[in-house]
Amino acid sequence: MEIGFSKQLDDAIVEISKLPGIGKRTALRLALHILKMERGDVQMLSDAIIALKDKVCYCRECHNLSDTELCEICANPKRNKQIVCVVRDIRDVVAIENTNQYNGVYHVLGGVIAPMEGIGPQHLNLDSLFQRVEAGGVGEVILALPATVDGDTTNFYIYRNIQGKVPAITTIARGIGIGDELEYTDEVTLGRSLLSRTEFEKSYIRRS
Amino acid sequence: MEIGFSKQLDDAIVEISKLPGIGKRTALRLALHILKMERGDVQMLSDAIIALKDKVCYCRECHNLSDTELCEICANPKRNKQIVCVVRDIRDVVAIENTNQYNGVYHVLGGVIAPMEGIGPQHLNLDSLFQRVEAGGVGEVILALPATVDGDTTNFYIYRNIQGKVPAITTIARGIGIGDELEYTDEVTLGRSLLSRTEFEKSYIRRS
Repeated sequence: MEIGFSKQLDDAIVEISKLPGIGKRTALRLALHILKMERGDVQMLSDAIIALKDKVCYCRECHNLSDTELCEICANPKRNKQIVCVVRDIRDVVAIENTNQYNGVYHVLGGVIAPMEGIGPQHLNLDSLFQRVEAGGVGEVILALPATVDGDTTNFYIYRNIQGKVPAITTIARGIGIGDELEYTDEVTLGRSLLSRTEFEKSYIRRS
Repeated sequence: MEIGFSKQLDDAIVEISKLPGIGKRTALRLALHILKMERGDVQMLSDAIIALKDKVCYCRECHNLSDTELCEICANPKRNKQIVCVVRDIRDVVAIENTNQYNGVYHVLGGVIAPMEGIGPQHLNLDSLFQRVEAGGVGEVILALPATVDGDTTNFYIYRNIQGKVPAITTIARGIGIGDELEYTDEVTLGRSLLSRTEFEKSYIRRS
Protein backbone atom coordinates (compact mmCIF):
# COMPACT_ATOMS: atom_id res chain seq x y z
CA MET A 1 0.00 0.00 0.00
CA GLU A 2 1.79 3.06 -1.31
CA ILE A 3 -0.06 6.15 -0.20
CA GLY A 4 1.81 8.30 -2.65
CA PHE A 5 0.94 11.70 -1.18
CA SER A 6 3.96 11.94 1.02
CA LYS A 7 7.31 10.18 0.87
CA GLN A 8 7.73 10.67 4.62
CA LEU A 9 4.43 8.92 5.28
CA ASP A 10 5.27 6.08 2.92
CA ASP A 11 8.68 5.68 4.58
CA ALA A 12 7.14 5.61 8.04
CA ILE A 13 4.56 3.02 6.96
CA VAL A 14 7.27 0.80 5.50
CA GLU A 15 9.35 0.97 8.69
CA ILE A 16 6.45 0.56 11.13
CA SER A 17 4.95 -2.36 9.21
CA LYS A 18 8.23 -4.27 9.58
CA LEU A 19 7.28 -4.81 13.21
CA PRO A 20 5.66 -8.20 13.95
CA GLY A 21 1.87 -8.29 13.80
CA ILE A 22 1.60 -4.85 12.23
CA GLY A 23 0.33 -4.73 8.65
CA LYS A 24 0.27 -1.79 6.27
CA ARG A 25 -3.18 -0.70 7.32
CA THR A 26 -2.31 -0.66 11.04
CA ALA A 27 0.96 1.10 10.20
CA LEU A 28 -1.00 3.84 8.41
CA ARG A 29 -3.28 4.20 11.42
CA LEU A 30 -0.28 4.47 13.76
CA ALA A 31 1.46 6.93 11.42
CA LEU A 32 -1.63 9.16 11.33
CA HIS A 33 -1.74 9.01 15.12
CA ILE A 34 1.93 10.00 15.35
CA LEU A 35 1.16 12.98 13.13
CA LYS A 36 -1.41 14.15 15.64
CA MET A 37 0.86 13.65 18.65
CA GLU A 38 2.78 16.49 20.32
CA ARG A 39 6.28 17.01 18.92
CA GLY A 40 7.82 16.23 22.33
CA ASP A 41 5.95 12.93 22.65
CA VAL A 42 7.07 11.85 19.18
CA GLN A 43 10.66 12.69 20.14
CA MET A 44 10.31 10.59 23.30
CA LEU A 45 8.98 7.64 21.31
CA SER A 46 11.74 7.91 18.75
CA ASP A 47 14.42 8.27 21.46
CA ALA A 48 13.06 5.38 23.53
CA ILE A 49 13.28 3.06 20.51
CA ILE A 50 16.88 3.91 19.74
CA ALA A 51 17.90 3.92 23.42
CA LEU A 52 16.36 0.47 23.77
CA LYS A 53 18.67 -0.87 21.09
CA ASP A 54 21.72 1.09 22.21
CA LYS A 55 21.64 0.87 25.98
CA VAL A 56 19.96 -2.38 26.99
CA CYS A 57 22.38 -5.24 27.45
CA TYR A 58 22.09 -8.82 28.62
CA CYS A 59 23.07 -10.10 32.06
CA ARG A 60 26.39 -11.98 31.81
CA GLU A 61 25.12 -14.62 34.21
CA CYS A 62 21.55 -15.40 33.12
CA HIS A 63 21.13 -13.49 29.79
CA ASN A 64 18.14 -11.61 31.16
CA LEU A 65 17.73 -8.05 29.88
CA SER A 66 19.51 -5.53 32.05
CA ASP A 67 20.89 -2.02 32.08
CA THR A 68 23.93 -3.30 33.95
CA GLU A 69 26.38 -6.15 33.48
CA LEU A 70 24.66 -8.24 36.13
CA CYS A 71 20.84 -8.10 36.18
CA GLU A 72 18.87 -7.11 39.27
CA ILE A 73 17.84 -10.67 39.99
CA CYS A 74 21.35 -12.12 39.78
CA ALA A 75 22.73 -9.16 41.77
CA ASN A 76 20.14 -9.58 44.52
CA PRO A 77 21.79 -11.30 47.55
CA LYS A 78 18.39 -12.51 48.78
CA ARG A 79 17.84 -14.73 45.72
CA ASN A 80 18.77 -18.40 46.00
CA LYS A 81 21.59 -18.95 43.47
CA GLN A 82 21.37 -22.73 43.92
CA ILE A 83 18.08 -22.95 42.01
CA VAL A 84 18.23 -22.07 38.29
CA CYS A 85 14.98 -21.81 36.34
CA VAL A 86 15.48 -22.25 32.58
CA VAL A 87 13.03 -20.16 30.51
CA ARG A 88 12.60 -19.28 26.85
CA ASP A 89 12.65 -15.50 27.05
CA ILE A 90 12.23 -12.45 29.24
CA ARG A 91 8.43 -12.60 29.00
CA ASP A 92 8.51 -15.88 30.89
CA VAL A 93 10.77 -14.32 33.52
CA VAL A 94 8.17 -11.56 33.91
CA ALA A 95 5.36 -14.12 34.17
CA ILE A 96 7.16 -16.17 36.84
CA GLU A 97 8.24 -13.07 38.79
CA ASN A 98 4.61 -11.95 38.84
CA THR A 99 3.59 -15.12 40.67
CA ASN A 100 5.76 -14.12 43.69
CA GLN A 101 6.33 -17.86 44.18
CA TYR A 102 9.94 -18.09 43.02
CA ASN A 103 13.07 -16.99 44.84
CA GLY A 104 15.77 -18.64 42.72
CA VAL A 105 17.57 -17.26 39.67
CA TYR A 106 17.00 -17.73 35.94
CA HIS A 107 18.70 -18.79 32.77
CA VAL A 108 17.17 -17.21 29.67
CA LEU A 109 17.72 -19.33 26.55
CA GLY A 110 16.54 -16.72 24.06
CA GLY A 111 14.29 -19.27 22.32
CA VAL A 112 13.78 -23.02 22.04
CA ILE A 113 15.25 -25.54 19.62
CA ALA A 114 13.04 -25.33 16.52
CA PRO A 115 14.46 -27.30 13.58
CA MET A 116 11.60 -26.19 11.31
CA GLU A 117 12.60 -22.56 11.82
CA GLY A 118 16.31 -23.32 11.60
CA ILE A 119 16.96 -22.67 15.28
CA GLY A 120 19.50 -25.14 16.63
CA PRO A 121 21.20 -25.44 20.05
CA GLN A 122 24.08 -23.23 18.84
CA HIS A 123 21.65 -20.27 18.46
CA LEU A 124 20.59 -20.42 22.11
CA ASN A 125 22.26 -19.62 25.42
CA LEU A 126 22.79 -23.33 26.13
CA ASP A 127 26.58 -23.58 26.45
CA SER A 128 26.57 -20.97 29.19
CA LEU A 129 23.89 -22.99 31.01
CA PHE A 130 26.04 -26.13 30.84
CA GLN A 131 29.04 -24.10 32.07
CA ARG A 132 26.98 -22.79 35.00
CA VAL A 133 26.09 -26.34 35.94
CA GLU A 134 29.63 -27.65 35.51
CA ALA A 135 31.07 -24.79 37.56
CA GLY A 136 29.16 -26.34 40.50
CA GLY A 137 27.01 -24.68 43.11
CA VAL A 138 23.73 -25.40 41.33
CA GLY A 139 21.47 -27.70 43.36
CA GLU A 140 18.43 -27.75 41.09
CA VAL A 141 17.65 -26.90 37.48
CA ILE A 142 13.97 -26.21 36.84
CA LEU A 143 12.95 -26.60 33.20
CA ALA A 144 10.15 -24.09 32.57
CA LEU A 145 9.91 -24.13 28.79
CA PRO A 146 6.67 -24.00 26.77
CA ALA A 147 4.60 -27.20 26.70
CA THR A 148 5.12 -27.60 22.96
CA VAL A 149 7.01 -30.08 20.81
CA ASP A 150 9.90 -27.63 20.49
CA GLY A 151 9.83 -26.98 24.23
CA ASP A 152 9.94 -30.72 24.94
CA THR A 153 12.80 -31.20 22.45
CA THR A 154 14.76 -28.48 24.21
CA ASN A 155 13.94 -29.94 27.63
CA PHE A 156 15.27 -33.30 26.51
CA TYR A 157 18.43 -31.77 24.98
CA ILE A 158 19.20 -29.94 28.23
CA TYR A 159 18.42 -33.01 30.30
CA ARG A 160 20.87 -35.15 28.32
CA ASN A 161 23.64 -32.59 28.77
CA ILE A 162 23.30 -31.94 32.49
CA GLN A 163 22.08 -35.35 33.67
CA GLY A 164 24.22 -36.54 36.59
CA LYS A 165 25.94 -33.16 36.92
CA VAL A 166 23.29 -31.54 39.08
CA PRO A 167 21.48 -33.07 42.10
CA ALA A 168 17.96 -32.31 40.83
CA ILE A 169 16.42 -31.63 37.43
CA THR A 170 12.71 -30.77 37.58
CA THR A 171 10.06 -29.38 35.25
CA ILE A 172 7.11 -27.19 36.11
CA ALA A 173 3.88 -29.15 36.55
CA ARG A 174 1.64 -29.62 33.52
CA GLY A 175 -2.04 -30.08 34.21
CA ILE A 176 -5.44 -28.48 34.39
CA GLY A 177 -5.24 -24.73 34.84
CA ILE A 178 -6.65 -23.32 38.09
CA GLY A 179 -10.30 -22.47 37.41
CA ASP A 180 -10.47 -24.57 34.22
CA GLU A 181 -13.33 -26.96 33.50
CA LEU A 182 -12.37 -30.55 32.72
CA GLU A 183 -14.76 -30.80 29.77
CA TYR A 184 -13.04 -27.93 27.95
CA THR A 185 -9.51 -29.18 28.57
CA ASP A 186 -7.81 -30.86 25.61
CA GLU A 187 -7.23 -34.62 25.83
CA VAL A 188 -3.43 -34.44 25.97
CA THR A 189 -3.42 -32.08 28.94
CA LEU A 190 -6.13 -34.07 30.70
CA GLY A 191 -4.33 -37.37 30.04
CA ARG A 192 -1.04 -35.94 31.27
CA SER A 193 -2.67 -34.52 34.38
CA LEU A 194 -3.97 -38.00 35.20
CA LEU A 195 -0.58 -39.62 34.68
CA SER A 196 1.09 -36.92 36.78
CA ARG A 197 -1.48 -37.07 39.57
CA THR A 198 -0.15 -35.95 42.95
CA GLU A 199 -1.10 -36.89 46.51
CA PHE A 200 -4.11 -34.88 47.54
CA GLU A 201 -2.53 -33.55 50.72
CA LYS A 202 0.65 -32.49 48.94
CA SER A 203 -1.24 -30.60 46.28
CA TYR A 204 -2.57 -28.22 48.92
CA ILE A 205 0.83 -27.45 50.43
CA ARG A 206 1.72 -23.85 49.77
CA ARG A 207 5.38 -23.43 48.92
CA SER A 208 7.02 -20.25 50.11
CA MET B 1 3.20 -3.82 33.74
CA GLU B 2 6.57 -2.67 35.01
CA ILE B 3 9.22 -5.13 33.90
CA GLY B 4 11.73 -3.72 36.33
CA PHE B 5 14.86 -5.31 34.87
CA SER B 6 15.74 -2.45 32.61
CA LYS B 7 14.76 1.20 32.73
CA GLN B 8 15.30 1.47 28.96
CA LEU B 9 12.89 -1.38 28.34
CA ASP B 10 10.30 0.08 30.71
CA ASP B 11 10.64 3.48 29.03
CA ALA B 12 10.21 1.97 25.58
CA ILE B 13 7.14 0.01 26.70
CA VAL B 14 5.56 3.16 28.16
CA GLU B 15 6.15 5.10 24.94
CA ILE B 16 5.10 2.36 22.53
CA SER B 17 1.94 1.54 24.48
CA LYS B 18 0.78 5.15 24.10
CA LEU B 19 0.00 4.30 20.47
CA PRO B 20 -3.66 3.44 19.78
CA GLY B 21 -4.57 -0.23 19.98
CA ILE B 22 -1.24 -1.22 21.52
CA GLY B 23 -1.37 -2.46 25.11
CA LYS B 24 1.51 -3.12 27.47
CA ARG B 25 1.82 -6.75 26.43
CA THR B 26 2.02 -5.93 22.72
CA ALA B 27 4.45 -3.11 23.52
CA LEU B 28 6.70 -5.60 25.30
CA ARG B 29 6.55 -7.94 22.30
CA LEU B 30 7.45 -5.08 19.94
CA ALA B 31 10.24 -3.91 22.25
CA LEU B 32 11.74 -7.41 22.38
CA HIS B 33 11.55 -7.52 18.59
CA ILE B 34 13.30 -4.15 18.32
CA LEU B 35 16.08 -5.52 20.54
CA LYS B 36 16.64 -8.32 18.05
CA MET B 37 16.62 -6.01 15.00
CA GLU B 38 19.78 -4.76 13.30
CA ARG B 39 21.06 -1.43 14.66
CA GLY B 40 20.60 0.19 11.24
CA ASP B 41 16.97 -0.90 10.96
CA VAL B 42 16.19 0.45 14.42
CA GLN B 43 17.79 3.75 13.42
CA MET B 44 15.62 3.84 10.27
CA LEU B 45 12.46 3.20 12.29
CA SER B 46 13.35 5.86 14.83
CA ASP B 47 14.27 8.36 12.09
CA ALA B 48 11.14 7.66 10.05
CA ILE B 49 8.94 8.40 13.07
CA ILE B 50 10.56 11.73 13.81
CA ALA B 51 10.76 12.70 10.12
CA LEU B 52 7.05 11.94 9.81
CA LYS B 53 6.27 14.49 12.49
CA ASP B 54 8.84 17.06 11.34
CA LYS B 55 8.57 16.99 7.56
CA VAL B 56 5.02 16.05 6.62
CA CYS B 57 2.74 19.02 6.22
CA TYR B 58 -0.84 19.51 5.14
CA CYS B 59 -1.94 20.76 1.72
CA ARG B 60 -3.04 24.41 2.04
CA GLU B 61 -5.95 23.73 -0.32
CA CYS B 62 -7.45 20.42 0.78
CA HIS B 63 -5.61 19.57 4.06
CA ASN B 64 -4.44 16.27 2.65
CA LEU B 65 -1.03 15.08 3.84
CA SER B 66 1.76 16.29 1.62
CA ASP B 67 5.51 16.88 1.55
CA THR B 68 4.86 20.14 -0.30
CA GLU B 69 2.62 23.14 0.24
CA LEU B 70 0.16 21.93 -2.39
CA CYS B 71 -0.52 18.18 -2.45
CA GLU B 72 -0.04 16.06 -5.56
CA ILE B 73 -3.77 15.82 -6.20
CA CYS B 74 -4.42 19.58 -5.96
CA ALA B 75 -1.28 20.29 -8.00
CA ASN B 76 -2.32 17.88 -10.76
CA PRO B 77 -3.68 19.89 -13.75
CA LYS B 78 -5.63 16.83 -14.94
CA ARG B 79 -7.85 16.76 -11.84
CA ASN B 80 -11.23 18.46 -12.03
CA LYS B 81 -11.11 21.31 -9.48
CA GLN B 82 -14.85 21.91 -9.83
CA ILE B 83 -15.74 18.75 -7.94
CA VAL B 84 -14.79 18.66 -4.26
CA CYS B 85 -15.20 15.42 -2.33
CA VAL B 86 -15.45 15.96 1.44
CA VAL B 87 -13.89 13.11 3.45
CA ARG B 88 -13.04 12.47 7.08
CA ASP B 89 -9.35 11.70 6.81
CA ILE B 90 -6.50 10.65 4.55
CA ARG B 91 -7.47 6.97 4.80
CA ASP B 92 -10.69 7.79 2.98
CA VAL B 93 -8.73 9.66 0.30
CA VAL B 94 -6.61 6.54 -0.16
CA ALA B 95 -9.73 4.35 -0.36
CA ILE B 96 -11.38 6.58 -2.98
CA GLU B 97 -8.17 6.97 -5.00
CA ASN B 98 -7.86 3.19 -5.08
CA THR B 99 -11.23 2.90 -6.86
CA ASN B 100 -9.83 4.82 -9.89
CA GLN B 101 -13.37 6.20 -10.31
CA TYR B 102 -12.79 9.74 -9.11
CA ASN B 103 -11.09 12.58 -10.92
CA GLY B 104 -12.06 15.55 -8.76
CA VAL B 105 -10.27 16.99 -5.76
CA TYR B 106 -10.77 16.50 -2.00
CA HIS B 107 -11.38 18.36 1.19
CA VAL B 108 -10.08 16.50 4.25
CA LEU B 109 -12.00 17.46 7.41
CA GLY B 110 -9.66 15.74 9.84
CA GLY B 111 -12.58 14.08 11.63
CA VAL B 112 -16.34 14.38 12.01
CA ILE B 113 -18.43 16.33 14.48
CA ALA B 114 -18.66 14.11 17.57
CA PRO B 115 -20.21 15.90 20.54
CA MET B 116 -19.70 12.85 22.79
CA GLU B 117 -15.95 13.04 22.19
CA GLY B 118 -15.89 16.82 22.47
CA ILE B 119 -15.19 17.35 18.76
CA GLY B 120 -17.07 20.38 17.47
CA PRO B 121 -17.07 22.11 14.08
CA GLN B 122 -14.27 24.43 15.25
CA HIS B 123 -11.89 21.44 15.55
CA LEU B 124 -12.33 20.45 11.91
CA ASN B 125 -11.28 21.96 8.57
CA LEU B 126 -14.79 23.26 7.96
CA ASP B 127 -14.23 27.02 7.67
CA SER B 128 -11.74 26.49 4.85
CA LEU B 129 -14.33 24.32 3.07
CA PHE B 130 -16.92 27.09 3.31
CA GLN B 131 -14.32 29.59 2.07
CA ARG B 132 -13.53 27.34 -0.91
CA VAL B 133 -17.21 27.23 -1.78
CA GLU B 134 -17.72 30.97 -1.31
CA ALA B 135 -14.66 31.77 -3.42
CA GLY B 136 -16.64 30.27 -6.30
CA GLY B 137 -15.55 27.84 -9.00
CA VAL B 138 -16.90 24.76 -7.20
CA GLY B 139 -19.67 23.08 -9.18
CA GLU B 140 -20.33 20.10 -6.92
CA VAL B 141 -19.61 19.14 -3.34
CA ILE B 142 -19.73 15.38 -2.73
CA LEU B 143 -20.26 14.44 0.90
CA ALA B 144 -18.40 11.16 1.47
CA LEU B 145 -18.41 10.91 5.25
CA PRO B 146 -18.93 7.70 7.25
CA ALA B 147 -22.51 6.39 7.37
CA THR B 148 -22.70 6.93 11.13
CA VAL B 149 -24.68 9.29 13.35
CA ASP B 150 -21.65 11.57 13.63
CA GLY B 151 -21.11 11.41 9.88
CA ASP B 152 -24.76 12.31 9.26
CA THR B 153 -24.55 15.19 11.75
CA THR B 154 -21.51 16.53 9.94
CA ASN B 155 -23.19 16.07 6.54
CA PHE B 156 -26.15 18.08 7.74
CA TYR B 157 -23.95 20.80 9.26
CA ILE B 158 -22.07 21.21 5.99
CA TYR B 159 -25.29 21.12 3.97
CA ARG B 160 -26.80 23.97 6.02
CA ASN B 161 -23.69 26.10 5.52
CA ILE B 162 -23.21 25.69 1.78
CA GLN B 163 -26.83 25.23 0.68
CA GLY B 164 -27.58 27.60 -2.21
CA LYS B 165 -23.92 28.57 -2.61
CA VAL B 166 -22.95 25.65 -4.83
CA PRO B 167 -24.89 24.23 -7.80
CA ALA B 168 -24.88 20.62 -6.57
CA ILE B 169 -24.49 18.93 -3.19
CA THR B 170 -24.45 15.14 -3.37
CA THR B 171 -23.64 12.23 -1.09
CA ILE B 172 -22.15 8.89 -2.01
CA ALA B 173 -24.77 6.18 -2.43
CA ARG B 174 -25.65 4.07 0.59
CA GLY B 175 -26.92 0.59 -0.13
CA ILE B 176 -26.11 -3.09 -0.39
CA GLY B 177 -22.41 -3.69 -0.90
CA ILE B 178 -21.40 -5.32 -4.19
CA GLY B 179 -21.33 -9.07 -3.57
CA ASP B 180 -23.38 -8.85 -0.35
CA GLU B 181 -26.31 -11.12 0.40
CA LEU B 182 -29.59 -9.42 1.27
CA GLU B 183 -30.32 -11.73 4.18
CA TYR B 184 -27.10 -10.72 5.97
CA THR B 185 -27.56 -6.98 5.42
CA ASP B 186 -28.76 -4.99 8.42
CA GLU B 187 -32.32 -3.63 8.31
CA VAL B 188 -31.32 0.04 8.19
CA THR B 189 -29.07 -0.40 5.16
CA LEU B 190 -31.64 -2.59 3.40
CA GLY B 191 -34.45 -0.15 4.15
CA ARG B 192 -32.38 2.78 2.93
CA SER B 193 -31.38 0.93 -0.23
CA LEU B 194 -35.09 0.42 -0.99
CA LEU B 195 -35.92 4.08 -0.40
CA SER B 196 -32.96 5.16 -2.55
CA ARG B 197 -33.72 2.72 -5.34
CA THR B 198 -32.39 3.81 -8.73
CA GLU B 199 -33.58 3.13 -12.28
CA PHE B 200 -32.27 -0.22 -13.38
CA GLU B 201 -30.70 1.07 -16.57
CA LYS B 202 -28.93 3.93 -14.77
CA SER B 203 -27.48 1.62 -12.16
CA TYR B 204 -25.48 -0.15 -14.85
CA ILE B 205 -23.98 2.99 -16.34
CA ARG B 206 -20.24 3.06 -15.73
CA ARG B 207 -19.03 6.53 -14.90
CA SER B 208 -15.57 7.42 -16.09
